[in-house]
Amino acid sequence: MTVRRLPLPALVAHCVRLGVPGVGLWRAPVEEYGADAAARLVRDAGLAVSTLCRGGFFTGTGTGTGKGKGDGGDWWDDNRRAVDLCAVLGTDTLVLVSGGLPAGSRDLAAARARITDAIGRLAPYAAERGVRLAVEPLHPMFAADRCAVSTLDQALAIAEEFPADQVGVVVDTYHLWWDDRAPAAVARAGAAGRIHAFQLADWITPLPAGVLHGRGRLGTGSIDLPGWCALVAEAGYTGPVEVEIFNDELWERDGVEVLEQTVGAFLAV
Amino acid sequence: MTVRRLPLPALVAHCVRLGVPGVGLWRAPVEEYGADAAARLVRDAGLAVSTLCRGGFFTGTGTGTGKGKGDGGDWWDDNRRAVDLCAVLGTDTLVLVSGGLPAGSRDLAAARARITDAIGRLAPYAAERGVRLAVEPLHPMFAADRCAVSTLDQALAIAEEFPADQVGVVVDTYHLWWDDRAPAAVARAGAAGRIHAFQLADWITPLPAGVLHGRGRLGTGSIDLPGWCALVAEAGYTGPVEVEIFNDELWERDGVEVLEQTVGAFLAV
Repeated sequence: MTVRRLPLPALVAHCVRLGVPGVGLWRAPVEEYGADAAARLVRDAGLAVSTLCRGGFFTGTGTGTGKGKGDGGDWWDDNRRAVDLCAVLGTDTLVLVSGGLPAGSRDLAAARARITDAIGRLAPYAAERGVRLAVEPLHPMFAADRCAVSTLDQALAIAEEFPADQVGVVVDTYHLWWDDRAPAAVARAGAAGRIHAFQLADWITPLPAGVLHGRGRLGTGSIDLPGWCALVAEAGYTGPVEVEIFNDELWERDGVEVLEQTVGAFLAV
Repeated sequence: MTVRRLPLPALVAHCVRLGVPGVGLWRAPVEEYGADAAARLVRDAGLAVSTLCRGGFFTGTGTGTGKGKGDGGDWWDDNRRAVDLCAVLGTDTLVLVSGGLPAGSRDLAAARARITDAIGRLAPYAAERGVRLAVEPLHPMFAADRCAVSTLDQALAIAEEFPADQVGVVVDTYHLWWDDRAPAAVARAGAAGRIHAFQLADWITPLPAGVLHGRGRLGTGSIDLPGWCALVAEAGYTGPVEVEIFNDELWERDGVEVLEQTVGAFLAV
């Protein structure tokens, strides 16, 4: 998504050229390209698919496809398809953006309970296909309309209801950096083998309207990214480190240039 | 601030007409009108000044005056003036927006330590003048550029370093509604007599650019406002309930109409 303007073949080719060993994919571009063809493309290039984004939207808000269609009422079918796509692509991790408040509701606790129930239904289906679920806490500014799971403690509490190899969490610096309780939760998640994905983006201000596409390139913002990398490493995490930057300005620029710059910034961090 | 287009005399007159017993004032309009004249105006009308907004910006970011000038480096003089103004206006509560990360810093914990030190210096000065400080946790989306104190737990931890009659907290629904730990912190703050202000605003999306002026009118958003009122009452709070809505659309409308509508919505909540 950081280089969303790059078509899949170019993304794969330039990742290989730059020594990037894996890539986190999003459903929409994969489905547009064709799941089997996309799977062949990355496999033939020797590229790992670190995660698939995304399942979720269990509360009847938003959409699981990232395409802006659907009202999420069909969460079961949509999430089953996401799991199936993971299996086709050969990734073991489906990232879940769980959904915000149902229409007319003001009850975040009820939304989280509904999310937990849905995950409990999805997890065995995923496990049978070699896929584990990664509950992503989103920044509290998304609690109403995107994800009622706002802290790593909340995500971990949901995950802990299920086996660690079935449900874990996403540690994303952009969503968690402000939280003084997050470091302890990272340690707890790591010790339990529940860090299923680790993503980097920086925090910059002012936020743009809608606040979704205002993430900062690595090193340009307020987050101590080396500190977060150390924290996650100390928690025992040895998996992929993804860079996920939603930024309208970045998306206007040449994708190859953005990818090269991102690799440089990543190595500097 | 909810009716910022109303000049002070009109604000006071219409509050009295509508049976609003008190008003939270901001420094800029008071200083423009003249402190002594403003104090006389509200006193003669029999209106209480619930709080003064604001002191703070202890970390060298932003400004304490709300006028957009100054770099905050002069925090001591600025905050002393704010305390003095409280005394002139006859309010016992100065709201503190504590400031974000200092320029170039990525260390939120250090910013909070600096804030605690500054409050420790300011509190005795304020106490001598009959003014108590109210540490306001701001929504985590303001952590970098406005307030490194993001949760009620953090605000309370700072306040608890000092006597309860000198330093307490602000409970503002807009900033805290997402936090599943806030209810317990409200109870703790109430039991200790540390809820020094209680403010209502609703959460609506999408957020506008800059996210500062996107608060919702009471009852139009995602927050269970009656639930929050009950929570604060159960914690033993019997003080004023303020409505503080920053909203560009609201500010474009007639101030008297906004005030009347706000009173209606307040009573409905």
